[in-house]
Amino acid sequence: MAYDVAVIVGSLRKDSLTRKFVNALKPLAPNGMRLEVVEIGDLPLYNDDWEADPSPAVTAFRKRIARADAVLFATPEYNRSVPGALKNAIDVGSRPYGKSVWNEKPAAVVSVSPGALSAFGANHHLRQALVFLNMPTLAQPEAYIGNVANLLDANGAFVKTETRDFIGKFLGAFDTLIGKFQGNRRSLAA
Amino acid sequence: MAYDVAVIVGSLRKDSLTRKFVNALKPLAPNGMRLEVVEIGDLPLYNDDWEADPSPAVTAFRKRIARADAVLFATPEYNRSVPGALKNAIDVGSRPYGKSVWNEKPAAVVSVSPGALSAFGANHHLRQALVFLNMPTLAQPEAYIGNVANLLDANGAFVKTETRDFIGKFLGAFDTLIGKFQGNRRSLAA
Amino acid sequence: MAYDVAVIVGSLRKDSLTRKFVNALKPLAPNGMRLEVVEIGDLPLYNDDWEADPSPAVTAFRKRIARADAVLFATPEYNRSVPGALKNAIDVGSRPYGKSVWNEKPAAVVSVSPGALSAFGANHHLRQALVFLNMPTLAQPEAYIGNVANLLDANGAFVKTETRDFIGKFLGAFDTLIGKFQGNRRSLAA
Amino acid sequence: MAYDVAVIVGSLRKDSLTRKFVNALKPLAPNGMRLEVVEIGDLPLYNDDWEADPSPAVTAFRKRIARADAVLFATPEYNRSVPGALKNAIDVGSRPYGKSVWNEKPAAVVSVSPGALSAFGANHHLRQALVFLNMPTLAQPEAYIGNVANLLDANGAFVKTETRDFIGKFLGAFDTLIGKFQGNRRSLAA
Repeated sequence: MAYDVAVIVGSLRKDSLTRKFVNALKPLAPNGMRLEVVEIGDLPLYNDDWEADPSPAVTAFRKRIARADAVLFATPEYNRSVPGALKNAIDVGSRPYGKSVWNEKPAAVVSVSPGALSAFGANHHLRQALVFLNMPTLAQPEAYIGNVANLLDANGAFVKTETRDFIGKFLGAFDTLIGKFQGNRRSLAA
Repeated sequence: MAYDVAVIVGSLRKDSLTRKFVNALKPLAPNGMRLEVVEIGDLPLYNDDWEADPSPAVTAFRKRIARADAVLFATPEYNRSVPGALKNAIDVGSRPYGKSVWNEKPAAVVSVSPGALSAFGANHHLRQALVFLNMPTLAQPEAYIGNVANLLDANGAFVKTETRDFIGKFLGAFDTLIGKFQGNRRSLAA
Repeated sequence: MAYDVAVIVGSLRKDSLTRKFVNALKPLAPNGMRLEVVEIGDLPLYNDDWEADPSPAVTAFRKRIARADAVLFATPEYNRSVPGALKNAIDVGSRPYGKSVWNEKPAAVVSVSPGALSAFGANHHLRQALVFLNMPTLAQPEAYIGNVANLLDANGAFVKTETRDFIGKFLGAFDTLIGKFQGNRRSLAA
Repeated sequence: MAYDVAVIVGSLRKDSLTRKFVNALKPLAPNGMRLEVVEIGDLPLYNDDWEADPSPAVTAFRKRIARADAVLFATPEYNRSVPGALKNAIDVGSRPYGKSVWNEKPAAVVSVSPGALSAFGANHHLRQALVFLNMPTLAQPEAYIGNVANLLDANGAFVKTETRDFIGKFLGAFDTLIGKFQGNRRSLAA
């Protein structure tokens, strides 16, 4: 079975290390898992007042997440938490009340940082939101990626076998998790 | 001594209960404390790529916070954390590196909710960011405001003496905290 | 299939409201789910130095958790986090390195409080530990039980149908979660 | 003015790296700051039922903290949070209701780890408790000590000038914080 996994990248800048990390990770997806970055930079700040007439960017984002089988969040840490842009995308997708597009989609979190602390704070703040959003979230292996610049070579691939092996294991565990929850998503959708 | 306190309201909608709560709170400020809401709804999603040429909204926001003596954060909870819009304002004010406008400003947090849990999750996620931002933050009294709609009368004032007393105590403690840290801000500014 | 669910009660005192809540909850377990409180009050504070020769209480606790199919944590909040006694039980069960008895066991969390905030802080601090312990944890329905004294009648049963219905739904969702992960525990054990 | 700072070490084992780190840190205290480790390994698990007749260890612990001017918490991370033993000491000191010995004492947190993540999770879980305990807590510099074994030489001193400088700056900032809050503790005690 093929899984369509939406990838949310928490940093918006063009040369984002988190995005580069995601690009290096994509070719390591297990057979049948397709990873596609869903952009969040054009979403307006969430405001209930525009809910009656949401912008095309909002509608497109919600539709894209709604048809995904699962979501991978790749996040840097801004000020010991998730970037506002990432949290805003979560808020946009969670509304209107009772129509959250996140509901029941399996999730995985990878936090990415140029430093040693590996965006731990962002990783776990995000997880607290995912509980509310009812997204069964991968526990182990946790993915805290520190010193990320050193992990990538000039072509944007991972330098070390060790990193590739870890990412393979991480995505494999995510694939297994998706499989466990796929059934009841399908039956709910029926 | 008069303190200029910037108030950040985490919800953007016009009829926000958090904003109504702030409006009810303002007249209860102690002598010499001036509370002014600083708007965050026009800020773009933070992106390092525009840092070379930030929009007027960004520049105005940074200047306004920079001249404040202290900051009061009034936040609802979206998906068990702070709203993306509020986190984005924090991110915008924290950059560029080394020029954060939040640095050393005393802070207080009030979380506001229509329900019983009182936005506890938003309150403490915000506090984690404030540690990094180097903002000495009021501990007690913690301010978890639940069932907020019941606290306000038709004119937008607090119904109960009890609420007014609590807010008076809260703002009084904040005033004392600001006083303790005012000295070294002044000397740094000199 | 019958599930053996170990229940950890975070408060040690005899008349604990959390324990009373658990007693009221037990009769509402779905068919085939057996809930048994596993005591934690005799465990010594975790110290690697006694690991070479752990006390009988430690050994018995580890064995009991090891044979459980899943774990339900019922926790009050002490000082905005989990009680030390509960965290200590988690630490004891997690060691020695590589032999954690928590590994891969499905978990659910219910936080219980005499007040309105419903031990939210304890609930989510506990969840952060469960990620590390590799315990797939129930997301929805979240169980924040506030004003717990009002929920129990003189015989220790729930006063309201509404509470019984919620608990039934909560335990039913937990039962479903256990089912999803039961397979690979069995195959790992084989 | 001389400050009496109680140091709580979160790990109980004899050869604890956190304790070694504290031993290396002690000689770097600024003039007038005296750091003394207060032991927590003999405290019973907190239980309201023994509150009517607490053990001598409990009474001694409470008295020792009560007379301290401030508290430095040095904590490893167990299962992504503070060790149960440390949380238990906090719980013991916080009771009985209204008589918490932690109240209004300035605090600082240093998290210590053999790995890269530097016990970030323990650091911030602890901070959430300190808000409730009404302890004004040092924000910057945050102290996340990773790869701690590499920082200590055969005599238990810090290998690098860089580490000594950081610790000096950390304790200096703590000293300044204590000074700001010392006045009102004194007046409250009068």
